[in-house]
Amino acid sequence: MDALSQTAPAPGQGGAKEFLDQLFSAGVLTETGVDGLYGRSGDFEEVIERFETLVTRYAGADKAERIHFPPGMPRPMLEKSGYLKSFPQLAGCVHSFMGGEADHARLLQMLANGEDWTDLQQATDVVLTPAACYPLYPTVAKRGPMPDGGVLFDLKSYCFRHEPSQDPARMQLFRMREYVRIGSPEEVRAFRESWLERGPELIRSLGLPCEIDLANDPFFGRAGKMLANNQRDQGLKFELLIPVANEKPTACLSFNYHQDHFGTLWGIQQADGTPAHSACVGFGLERVALALFRHHGMKVADWPQSVRAVLWG
Amino acid sequence: MDALSQTAPAPGQGGAKEFLDQLFSAGVLTETGVDGLYGRSGDFEEVIERFETLVTRYAGADKAERIHFPPGMPRPMLEKSGYLKSFPQLAGCVHSFMGGEADHARLLQMLANGEDWTDLQQATDVVLTPAACYPLYPTVAKRGPMPDGGVLFDLKSYCFRHEPSQDPARMQLFRMREYVRIGSPEEVRAFRESWLERGPELIRSLGLPCEIDLANDPFFGRAGKMLANNQRDQGLKFELLIPVANEKPTACLSFNYHQDHFGTLWGIQQADGTPAHSACVGFGLERVALALFRHHGMKVADWPQSVRAVLWG
Repeated sequence: MDALSQTAPAPGQGGAKEFLDQLFSAGVLTETGVDGLYGRSGDFEEVIERFETLVTRYAGADKAERIHFPPGMPRPMLEKSGYLKSFPQLAGCVHSFMGGEADHARLLQMLANGEDWTDLQQATDVVLTPAACYPLYPTVAKRGPMPDGGVLFDLKSYCFRHEPSQDPARMQLFRMREYVRIGSPEEVRAFRESWLERGPELIRSLGLPCEIDLANDPFFGRAGKMLANNQRDQGLKFELLIPVANEKPTACLSFNYHQDHFGTLWGIQQADGTPAHSACVGFGLERVALALFRHHGMKVADWPQSVRAVLWG
Repeated sequence: MDALSQTAPAPGQGGAKEFLDQLFSAGVLTETGVDGLYGRSGDFEEVIERFETLVTRYAGADKAERIHFPPGMPRPMLEKSGYLKSFPQLAGCVHSFMGGEADHARLLQMLANGEDWTDLQQATDVVLTPAACYPLYPTVAKRGPMPDGGVLFDLKSYCFRHEPSQDPARMQLFRMREYVRIGSPEEVRAFRESWLERGPELIRSLGLPCEIDLANDPFFGRAGKMLANNQRDQGLKFELLIPVANEKPTACLSFNYHQDHFGTLWGIQQADGTPAHSACVGFGLERVALALFRHHGMKVADWPQSVRAVLWG
């Protein structure tokens, strides 16, 4: 959550809000009236597409199984996942109007009066997906024990986090590309190691400065501080940081080792019947695109030839 | 809404639920436990990508401006749009927990007791996008009067509609590709005419049977019946129908003429200052993909060579 409070300008470049205004002026992003909800230009979309192709190339030999989930998942899955314990403030639950014609007339009257009508809705079975891999674990568990050598998945999803901010790198709805490795502790740690090497190589090939650092998730409340400390002490989370819009650089990739947390929670078994371990590497696609626009300028056509060659080559 | 009540099997093929089970068995879709929320296989995703490339090819000479919005939009935009008047039952509003540590403890206790905790949330500023073009009109209005000859946009978004169903062609979260033409009545009608010709040509090139028919939106309640009749009487909506999972064929593309509805509502002006007219063609990407799997089989590699050549050629 630190980027919210740290909007001091990076040397000579202005802060997060200034960068956001620059993106609006250049038409890279389009304002909608709500912080963290923006339209994206065709160039922005193409940069994300080309970056994803590059990621696929780096992952090429790994033979991942591609599986895609929509930006919403079943509420019972999120409830069981522990997300509401750790990050209740970020979750989003979809509510809908389920009344009849009389209730509808009341809704329209409230709307016309400028009153808050939203209590006329009820919670649906749908919550917004907080990270691309959340719907994966419970569905994979149903396949039975993993094959020898484990499995690797290639995912992409829009994700929601309720944290309105004027930092363009902290959107409420953003896309996450993710590789998830499920298997033995050795297999999943080796996977994470491979991306801790590939990640910086990939990002530097795009002319972007970066560093890897130990990190923790933004756990809620006082109890959360302890969880964050544990996560750090055990070296479970690393981030690849790029200076984007704040003095403090922005996490654009993250490398997470879940131990057997999801394996035990959802009953995912290794071939030998013991709980599977898992690890993931996540790419914040909007964040990487924003880093490219920040470092190489608002006009894609004017980006350094070396960068264009890597993306469009 | 009729597909919900009509699950009679198409000749020799079984009904919607049977088709859904077939898609699960073949691994084309993955069950999540909530009707209308499914995982998609890599093949399914590739079919959608190739179909989109084909759409872009058909639209090629039109020089559309690509703009992308996330699957959520500002609540005030939806409130002003009239959507809650016409389709209150389909809208989805994102609610989040905004309490402190004591409220959080209560939430966790309710969750542990299996009680309904969802009232501990409040409405956020975010609603789910019901159709790809909804966030476009208010943002375009801010650009000032349209240039001579009007404008054309190329959009794609995940859309939400709260209508849980076991018809795989009626998902709660699905992707819509859309072209939106804004300009004079003649310009936008000519645009719609061009897609009423291109659409069937494109679909038939994929070895799919189709027909164009007059249609109406599923307006809510008794007053909605009149709106639906008006829409039909004025020929404002056409659909391209393909037999997918029901006796009644499924609308996979739609062709809509909005007259000056959005132009007047949002203040979008033609070059001469009068309210702009608009029209759109929407492609239900999941529906088209499902039609292809239904007609050509569960294994993409076994699809007719002629179809593969069009998609992968």
